[in-house]
Amino acid sequence: MSETRRKRGGRRGRQAGGGDGGGDAPAAPAYITRVIPEYELLGADGLALIEANADAILQETGINFNYPPALKLFQAAGATVDGERVRFPSGMCRQIIRDSAPAVFEQQSRNPARSVMIGGKHTVFAPVYGPPFIRDLDGGRRYATIEDFRNFVKLAYALPQLHHSGGTVCEPTDLPVNKRHFDMVYSHIKYSDKPFMGSVTHPDRAQDTVDMCRILFGESFVDENTVLINLINANSPLTFDETMLGAAEVYARHNQATVISPFILAGAMSPVTAAGTLAQILAEAMAGMAFTQLVRAGAPVVFGTFASSISMQSGAPTFGTPEPALVLNGAAALARRLGVPFRSGGALCASKVPDAQAAYESANTLLPSLTAGVHFVLHAAGWLEGGLVSSYEKLVMDADQLGMLAVFAGGFDLSGNGQAMDAIREVGPGAHFLGCDHTQRNFKTAFYRSAIADNNSFEQWQSEGAKDAVQRADVRCKQLLADYAPPPLDPGVDEALREFIDKRKASFADSSY
Amino acid sequence: MSETRRKRGGRRGRQAGGGDGGGDAPAAPAYITRVIPEYELLGADGLALIEANADAILQETGINFNYPPALKLFQAAGATVDGERVRFPSGMCRQIIRDSAPAVFEQQSRNPARSVMIGGKHTVFAPVYGPPFIRDLDGGRRYATIEDFRNFVKLAYALPQLHHSGGTVCEPTDLPVNKRHFDMVYSHIKYSDKPFMGSVTHPDRAQDTVDMCRILFGESFVDENTVLINLINANSPLTFDETMLGAAEVYARHNQATVISPFILAGAMSPVTAAGTLAQILAEAMAGMAFTQLVRAGAPVVFGTFASSISMQSGAPTFGTPEPALVLNGAAALARRLGVPFRSGGALCASKVPDAQAAYESANTLLPSLTAGVHFVLHAAGWLEGGLVSSYEKLVMDADQLGMLAVFAGGFDLSGNGQAMDAIREVGPGAHFLGCDHTQRNFKTAFYRSAIADNNSFEQWQSEGAKDAVQRADVRCKQLLADYAPPPLDPGVDEALREFIDKRKASFADSSY
Repeated sequence: MSETRRKRGGRRGRQAGGGDGGGDAPAAPAYITRVIPEYELLGADGLALIEANADAILQETGINFNYPPALKLFQAAGATVDGERVRFPSGMCRQIIRDSAPAVFEQQSRNPARSVMIGGKHTVFAPVYGPPFIRDLDGGRRYATIEDFRNFVKLAYALPQLHHSGGTVCEPTDLPVNKRHFDMVYSHIKYSDKPFMGSVTHPDRAQDTVDMCRILFGESFVDENTVLINLINANSPLTFDETMLGAAEVYARHNQATVISPFILAGAMSPVTAAGTLAQILAEAMAGMAFTQLVRAGAPVVFGTFASSISMQSGAPTFGTPEPALVLNGAAALARRLGVPFRSGGALCASKVPDAQAAYESANTLLPSLTAGVHFVLHAAGWLEGGLVSSYEKLVMDADQLGMLAVFAGGFDLSGNGQAMDAIREVGPGAHFLGCDHTQRNFKTAFYRSAIADNNSFEQWQSEGAKDAVQRADVRCKQLLADYAPPPLDPGVDEALREFIDKRKASFADSSY
Repeated sequence: MSETRRKRGGRRGRQAGGGDGGGDAPAAPAYITRVIPEYELLGADGLALIEANADAILQETGINFNYPPALKLFQAAGATVDGERVRFPSGMCRQIIRDSAPAVFEQQSRNPARSVMIGGKHTVFAPVYGPPFIRDLDGGRRYATIEDFRNFVKLAYALPQLHHSGGTVCEPTDLPVNKRHFDMVYSHIKYSDKPFMGSVTHPDRAQDTVDMCRILFGESFVDENTVLINLINANSPLTFDETMLGAAEVYARHNQATVISPFILAGAMSPVTAAGTLAQILAEAMAGMAFTQLVRAGAPVVFGTFASSISMQSGAPTFGTPEPALVLNGAAALARRLGVPFRSGGALCASKVPDAQAAYESANTLLPSLTAGVHFVLHAAGWLEGGLVSSYEKLVMDADQLGMLAVFAGGFDLSGNGQAMDAIREVGPGAHFLGCDHTQRNFKTAFYRSAIADNNSFEQWQSEGAKDAVQRADVRCKQLLADYAPPPLDPGVDEALREFIDKRKASFADSSY
């Protein structure tokens, strides 16, 4: 288990406007530190059984790596390579990971006050990742543009419940596929000072992301610290492709974090059972994580899982159902036993609109994510329609829920003030606590204040236009964008970034793949 | 700890239409038996601290009992009585409860197949209780009538995810206050064969409920078995009133179950902190439960909690916020240590409409209820607007969520079929699981099927009218009512019940209190 790396200084002080408090986003903890215990549904015997099954999968069936450099590394490390198929001696992947992968690491942000700890008792919430469409109350559903992308970055910056700027908050479909990563990474740097994710759609784009971070943070700083976390999906079942492995290799080589994520719709990409899905996920994740450690021992790597299921009637993906919540919980426990941080969860839903279905489904994954002890919750806000749509209003609604989870994670205050025995003695039977000393002392911090929920009387709610949650979220969303002020960025760095982008963009032709 | 009482036979066989499978409601388990462990947020030290504080409250501050028979019982048992104030020697209430209250009991239903176990690893879901208003998509919000009451009983009967018919599923405001309990209890008996709750608004009405059950089940059966569970709220802080205590006395004397429930909006009826609220709840619940055991040792009694908080800005009740979820979890653990069943939770929300706010808030209490190990979840479906409104559509939407919780409660299948290693071996890398043997074998039972969620493509959803969750729930709700067929009831019993009601109704004048 490597120690946490935590180095500061160098060029970064300047990016934050000269101090730790830079930026205009509301003051809030940079990440959650959970006081509550992890909830474990599988006992030690059950977890050991899953581990043995994962080991059997790695040994007997093996994993396809469609990437020659990976085959070479695995063969040198003792695996059996047969074409693209790699079979692993018992315990090999686990040993490689345990020997060098850190249990917890810090992802640095250009504003040091917003750097996040990933692993241990910490939880980091990042926004939705990947949708080609956006939805808002005014315009409905349409293809996302770079303007939407910037808006989502600005909103994630402004919402104190989000700790992270995320990655592909939506696909800027108005830009060429092979060049849009420049504008995406630049937007994260320019419009936010929260940590962010790099491009994984091609190894060259991963390298561009690293190069832009070198301009932002300084070359040696990037090599010695983790400033990027990057989503590497497996092609489940039991396959990793060249694009993802190439990107993972670039990031690991530069000491940047990867999230090795089997992407599972159970019933299609894995068995229909939770225990079967778990064993497959563990096998895939361990093989991918071992690859990053063979590229560079000690490079931060996260055990990732995106697991949902399908409707056995239509084949359509479903979200917020009970089976994936079981899988999530089991995978989190397996990651703990392996000694690596874990990514899963999010405000996942199949609903086409931010209605009760969307909220119920999202809550059914969000709360289990927190109690399972997920360290990096991607898609924690804004996800709609099975991940095809980034929703403005849902981003704001979900973030409100994340604020509640942060309070829940804090558990009980058992101090004298928390016990409040003075209040109970003072008030006694039949009176009320509204005016007692203890209430007055704790007035400002007592109870989470929702920015979305309407708790007023029916009559007052009606007189205020009888707005539902989406309509209220729309108002808040527009207000946040209207109030947005960018965090300061050193003009020289900004200029250098723009120059780099212009030069790189000019060096090859646009394409749509 | 008393043994579970489980006696069958007598008149009940006939009520069920002569067999265990009577009635037309969908076949479903009569209650949940949880396989997953309880999630405990407070460790043993924290729980012991709360217990010590509750004991100090009972000893030093005491509880007001505005009911002379209770004062007499407590004094005889060793408590100090000063006016209406009762102070308890250290450990007295706990000892009384532990000496005689059962840890688990069966509430008998007229259809034995629908009797429920309350306590232990079991969870029972009951519908919303108490609202004077109803809301549906067609008519909006209006005062509830006896027709609405019957509809909610029919829906709770038809929905397999609800195990219980509940009590005041809505207030039939078109009937005189002092006589409506006859129609309410009769509706539960007539239109459902699931277990139900009795009237608590006056000791005479409690007695009427018991008398109607004697007609239904037979006199000696009722005295020897528990056929009713009844909600006794404390007037928090630290007060029980005459009405509730009188009703509790009637039920306990007849061996019927009571749920002693501190009704807490933290910040008003208890301190603003979770630990302070918990100590007060424990003190109140123990005092009330001890009362029932002094009335009749061994009468089933449930530790109840209804705890939410208020907005410190407006004083309005709030629901689905994190602090009450902490309280719920702690109270469940305290009940386990005390050795009695626990009631809390529900699909609580402040929202005026069944929108994303309603769903998020409801999920934020429902899921923590299950994982905390709540035994009797009142308000598990249909609650809206802070409990002022019973919602037709939300009843159906919430029930769908309860079905998911039931699956989650079942945990992992670790059998050979659950492990699915044959499937993983058969499919291997890069293929899919849709057609493999294992999937075919498990096709029908794999994954919870939601009756409300729309998982189809955007295009298909749009072509089907772009309905949101409430609109789909409305359709299902109307279908359930259209398909409703009453469970068979012995015509002689029915006649006897009607005669009893007519005679009693004629014996006193209508009144509105």
